[in-house]
Amino acid sequence: MTDVIPGFHAVVPAGGAGTRLWPLSRAGAPKFLHDLTGTGRTLLQGTVDRLLPLTGEGGVMVVTGARHQAAVQAQLPEVRPQDVLAEPSPRDSMAAIGLAAAVLEQRHGDVVLGSFAADQVIDGAEEFGRAVREGVEAARAGYVVTVGIAATGPSTAFGYVRSGAPLGVEGAPSVRHAQGFTEKPDAETAAEYLATGEYRWNAGMFIVRARALLDHLHAQLPTLHDGLREIAAAWDTPQRDEVLGRVWPTLTRIAIDHAIAEPVAAAGGVAVVPGDFTWDDVGDFASLAELLPAQSDASARTLGDESLVLRIDAAGTLVAPASGRAVTVIGVPDAVVVDTPDALLVTTLERAQQVKAGVDGWRERGREDLL
Amino acid sequence: MTDVIPGFHAVVPAGGAGTRLWPLSRAGAPKFLHDLTGTGRTLLQGTVDRLLPLTGEGGVMVVTGARHQAAVQAQLPEVRPQDVLAEPSPRDSMAAIGLAAAVLEQRHGDVVLGSFAADQVIDGAEEFGRAVREGVEAARAGYVVTVGIAATGPSTAFGYVRSGAPLGVEGAPSVRHAQGFTEKPDAETAAEYLATGEYRWNAGMFIVRARALLDHLHAQLPTLHDGLREIAAAWDTPQRDEVLGRVWPTLTRIAIDHAIAEPVAAAGGVAVVPGDFTWDDVGDFASLAELLPAQSDASARTLGDESLVLRIDAAGTLVAPASGRAVTVIGVPDAVVVDTPDALLVTTLERAQQVKAGVDGWRERGREDLL
Repeated sequence: MTDVIPGFHAVVPAGGAGTRLWPLSRAGAPKFLHDLTGTGRTLLQGTVDRLLPLTGEGGVMVVTGARHQAAVQAQLPEVRPQDVLAEPSPRDSMAAIGLAAAVLEQRHGDVVLGSFAADQVIDGAEEFGRAVREGVEAARAGYVVTVGIAATGPSTAFGYVRSGAPLGVEGAPSVRHAQGFTEKPDAETAAEYLATGEYRWNAGMFIVRARALLDHLHAQLPTLHDGLREIAAAWDTPQRDEVLGRVWPTLTRIAIDHAIAEPVAAAGGVAVVPGDFTWDDVGDFASLAELLPAQSDASARTLGDESLVLRIDAAGTLVAPASGRAVTVIGVPDAVVVDTPDALLVTTLERAQQVKAGVDGWRERGREDLL
Repeated sequence: MTDVIPGFHAVVPAGGAGTRLWPLSRAGAPKFLHDLTGTGRTLLQGTVDRLLPLTGEGGVMVVTGARHQAAVQAQLPEVRPQDVLAEPSPRDSMAAIGLAAAVLEQRHGDVVLGSFAADQVIDGAEEFGRAVREGVEAARAGYVVTVGIAATGPSTAFGYVRSGAPLGVEGAPSVRHAQGFTEKPDAETAAEYLATGEYRWNAGMFIVRARALLDHLHAQLPTLHDGLREIAAAWDTPQRDEVLGRVWPTLTRIAIDHAIAEPVAAAGGVAVVPGDFTWDDVGDFASLAELLPAQSDASARTLGDESLVLRIDAAGTLVAPASGRAVTVIGVPDAVVVDTPDALLVTTLERAQQVKAGVDGWRERGREDLL
């Protein structure tokens, strides 16, 4: 199952500040550049490690911000420099993935591409490979394929995709029509979703033929399509910088979900391949805590050197001793303590979603250096 | 009321690690060396500032550990070097105060001395001066005088002294006989104490004639008395180091409360002067929080630069941003966050008394550098 999938290319959008993981994740060093799970590999490296066996050498393309290009390249010696595309400024996921699709089509013709965010954690490489392999078959048949993750509970942190009838494509026995996408639901709605058996988490993974993607884009957002095509045509030429500088700032900012997935699903063109691997988008510290191994106090988690952490009556705490200093937590169960050289965060697992408010607070105070 | 009291000398024992204020207070830089109340003066400096107007120039003597001698001297340019006595090793308060009494008696004869710990905070200089002045009159009459602080509530953190009949000494109208001392009571007992109207907090301040103190010591602990007398006789001579090195390590470790105050009280020789000033021993972070001015969030307190602290849903928090780093607290009311360059403490006001357990924990792990 770890054989290379012929004609398959992976695209890894490496963007997003990961604000809810501040102060570990910063604008200058966002979460995908960090080893957040204590594996010794950053989230970006883990993503590429997972994809290279499926694409083969030279089959992974990363799209990232210009300010992160050097860091990305340094972390990924196995990815060729020409396969790290640098965006002059953030233009959201449609521009990032569309650019990759257009450059891939320019270089390799109508390959199948799969887009997988750089900051997700997956456990179950074989099942992941199985899902991608089926997804590629469905993509070859013309569909925009999304991976639907088996929900482990009625999460309100993720969007959902609803599955319909089997697709009936050769080599893709588990793939079904997608009936549509939903935004993050409230808890009650999420529970209703799961009770139907038809809903899965939408992990934002898309598998599609490059030309099919560009055709959909042409139909939905022709100006964005034309801009990306123009940039792609110049990418491997001396005109790249001129065209990029002129056209990139004009591109529409839109997520691929809204630009392609939702309208195409409504027209019956999206399929869902079930992915029964463990998946997490490491969206906040509560999510991160669940990904880390338990300490001797079974509910406590440490990201980093456990010898730097002393807990007394502090069950369930997540401590990231990232400055080398000794961290002592007494009598604050479920605390989140993130200790970095210039910024300290003290909160609780329950408040993990509100960390962004802290970042906003420092921005308002003009402390851009902390963001 | 701020006139100098003739023949009165102040002794300031500057010892104690202040473990419950760790990691602000360290073995190498104990709490009396710190400005814990944001006044710009350390607790030691505040203590001397309070006493010098009562003793006059040259009337304050500090007894401290040899390792703190240089720091003490640096903080107190107004105290002459010969008035900073350095103990080779900690031998508890009886040895410290007894040494000062013996040296004072050697230098000045039978003066009245008042002993006031270096790590207490007092608000109300005039009332403090009034109490000391009356205490000195009672001391001249032969009593060991303790200051009984008006309790603001049934604290379980302090010992109590019980007042009896008026003493009837000229110039000391408010002074009463002391019926005895009690250790820190439980909450119920403390409430009973206050209901009687007879109990006050024992602040560990003693006012007594030097010779009376030494006579009591001679009666109670003759060997300790003889050792201190021998050291004092050599103090201002070239023999000091030899005698100190030989005798000091043999001295009994005992608190002045047990050595003198309790047995002498039982024999009717202790008097209480009421002190109706605001007093605190800054015993822990909860106590410290009450001494600091409120921030814009009325119940929050900051020891240090408020611009380094961002609170969101964090009423009642005490934050000490003592490393220069930005501290963010989200959703942890009544948190205590003490941020120093090598150690971080996260706890709550309610757990303030348990900070010592953190220090013990690091000691067990061999991190003497953090203590």
